[in-house]
Amino acid sequence: MSDVAALRIDVDRLVGRIEALGEIGAIHGPNGERGCARLALTDADRDGRDLVVAWMADLGLTVEIDSIGNVFATRPGSDPTLAPVMTGSHIDTVRTGGRYDGNLGVLAGLEVVETLITAGVATPRGITVAFFTDEEGARFAPDMLGSLVYVGGMGLEDALDVRAADDGARLGDELARIGYAGPLPCPGAAFPHRYVELHIEQGPVLEDDGIEIGVVTGVQGISWTELTITGQSAHAGTTPMRLRHDPGYVAAEVAVSARRIAAELGGTQVATVGRLELTPNLVNVVANSATLTVDLRNTDESELQRAEALLASRLAELEAAEGVTIARRTLARFEPVDFDPAMIDTVEATARTLGYSTQRMPSGAGHDAQMLARVCPTAMIFTPSVHGLSHNIAEYTAPADLERGANVLLHVLLAAARS
Amino acid sequence: MSDVAALRIDVDRLVGRIEALGEIGAIHGPNGERGCARLALTDADRDGRDLVVAWMADLGLTVEIDSIGNVFATRPGSDPTLAPVMTGSHIDTVRTGGRYDGNLGVLAGLEVVETLITAGVATPRGITVAFFTDEEGARFAPDMLGSLVYVGGMGLEDALDVRAADDGARLGDELARIGYAGPLPCPGAAFPHRYVELHIEQGPVLEDDGIEIGVVTGVQGISWTELTITGQSAHAGTTPMRLRHDPGYVAAEVAVSARRIAAELGGTQVATVGRLELTPNLVNVVANSATLTVDLRNTDESELQRAEALLASRLAELEAAEGVTIARRTLARFEPVDFDPAMIDTVEATARTLGYSTQRMPSGAGHDAQMLARVCPTAMIFTPSVHGLSHNIAEYTAPADLERGANVLLHVLLAAARS
Repeated sequence: MSDVAALRIDVDRLVGRIEALGEIGAIHGPNGERGCARLALTDADRDGRDLVVAWMADLGLTVEIDSIGNVFATRPGSDPTLAPVMTGSHIDTVRTGGRYDGNLGVLAGLEVVETLITAGVATPRGITVAFFTDEEGARFAPDMLGSLVYVGGMGLEDALDVRAADDGARLGDELARIGYAGPLPCPGAAFPHRYVELHIEQGPVLEDDGIEIGVVTGVQGISWTELTITGQSAHAGTTPMRLRHDPGYVAAEVAVSARRIAAELGGTQVATVGRLELTPNLVNVVANSATLTVDLRNTDESELQRAEALLASRLAELEAAEGVTIARRTLARFEPVDFDPAMIDTVEATARTLGYSTQRMPSGAGHDAQMLARVCPTAMIFTPSVHGLSHNIAEYTAPADLERGANVLLHVLLAAARS
Repeated sequence: MSDVAALRIDVDRLVGRIEALGEIGAIHGPNGERGCARLALTDADRDGRDLVVAWMADLGLTVEIDSIGNVFATRPGSDPTLAPVMTGSHIDTVRTGGRYDGNLGVLAGLEVVETLITAGVATPRGITVAFFTDEEGARFAPDMLGSLVYVGGMGLEDALDVRAADDGARLGDELARIGYAGPLPCPGAAFPHRYVELHIEQGPVLEDDGIEIGVVTGVQGISWTELTITGQSAHAGTTPMRLRHDPGYVAAEVAVSARRIAAELGGTQVATVGRLELTPNLVNVVANSATLTVDLRNTDESELQRAEALLASRLAELEAAEGVTIARRTLARFEPVDFDPAMIDTVEATARTLGYSTQRMPSGAGHDAQMLARVCPTAMIFTPSVHGLSHNIAEYTAPADLERGANVLLHVLLAAARS
């Protein structure tokens, strides 16, 4: 089948769709940046959905919608008794998002299907291109909500009752309002044979290492803790150091400790204090309280637990040494997800056959693929993000990288659809 | 003169005036706290001034007002060729202030004068009780404005042109509006023979050490620096530690370094990071910038400079190590002020003669006395602050401590008025 091996996607057509979809909810930066704001289940999200569904219909695909608003467009296979393979991602964005995050995976799926149609290549298994509702969680928590409900990780009724963080709207009402409350049941009645998702890396590793394709081995486990440190407000001039119980100082020690924990564990461990607030936050007043968050991630659950234990031990030391109290609240805790070894091998071998440089890597961010991994063999393909930027109007991936990513997706889907 | 040596102030009368003045602009806390909000040159400040001036007039004192609104009430001495001695403080408060800060010094001065009048004790030198305009600087910057203008440290016209931080009102207009733009020239045409000020400590040292009277040796030098750290915003999950340029981490290292600098220098050195803000301040985003302030204070100018140098050196290390830039802005810089050695000795000896325990200590906060120290021999007396609280509606000093402080003031003024 040398004809099939020579198949390549049309990058201009792919970029054209990315740009056209990006015009819906477009936001523009002062330096020519072109971002996107299509929060889940808003009018902009509806308009984006309508455009993608129109493209799906133009390609003659069977479009189906489930009760949480996930959309599935299928090109049937030659053997209707075989479960289809699936690709996809999401088309909702954060409030100041880019044009590639999520959108690339969905539109590259359509591009793969159009490439096969144009070339007249049939596959035994059907190929489904999906987009999942509310992956970002920017308006309705939790994130990855649509794929979570699809795989049965959250009850449909609970999900429909979620309220929007911005205007308090009920998710189910908004879904009906924009016309995307479909008839397919949740969780899904049948799951795909395989799932593979193309996504921008959203990080700087591929660019920094000069690698063209990231072979994603899984998704890091996440541990988010909010700490509220209570001490004793005091005058910065009149209070000797020995009499202080300073939550601001303790918060700073926690942030420095987070960095040290990451260095000590090494490997994939990352640790971030991205949020830190002092009260009353005045130059000449020792704070009476500090609130900060610690974001710990690792691909290895036991290492992640070790990081958590090191942090807890440090907090206990600081509480005793400074005479403050530290209240802890878990904001999120997910165990790492490992993708399917055979699927990972397929992604890697496919990219190499196409002549692209590859690197195995975990995903530091959450993706719909981690939900699909619960119900079928799953993998992901990463393309580089310029400067690692994402959730940012300056998010950018060069056309040559989009092309490589979509070509890998094409041939991984082809292989899976014939397996 | 055993009669004079036996003189004591009337604490009930003193507390009565403190409570009556505290009712003007009174604010009440949920646990029975009774604070005060009389920002400089507001209607509440006018009402407070009117009450104190009425008390001054009731005592038969000569009340004079200068062009910046400082008020001077003098009980003449028996020798009109001698310059009077002066005591005083301020009656403006911060927005959530207490009833003792400043007010104690003014009302204890009146109490001393009333005690002398009642006992029929004349002094060769007159005794002037002053209150200075806008000591707090909470509405019009800088703080200690009235005493600064009085001693010639700031031009009158510049001071009158200062605009309010809250409503933009011009200081001179507000002064005229409340009827306190007086005829005396600024700077003062003649300065007092001696100045002594009674004030609450506003810190926890006396309480912690179980001492009744603080003998204030001077005012700490102050160095306030605002740092703005710029790095690279990044995804907390997808950005390996080695590729980060994290302003939040650097800000935390600066705050920890400030603590270490204070420990290394010891002595009176204090160091505080009371303000710290991250942008965008989200749990899963490495900040792109951080702003924080470093408040360094020492009684020794060379040590204060050493603290500044250690901080600067640490900033340079952190800039290079993390790949961030740190912009520095000086918010305030005052050299330490030393009070008059003979006056300090007099305060100490007087307190001991009265049977009170004493401790020499610097003031960590600024006071009008540091301005008066430019023009005449000056000292201060501290009374304990419960829990070190000040600029707080829970600010409190027990009547027995008020009594001791006012008795020391009485006998220091008596000695000075006879010298």
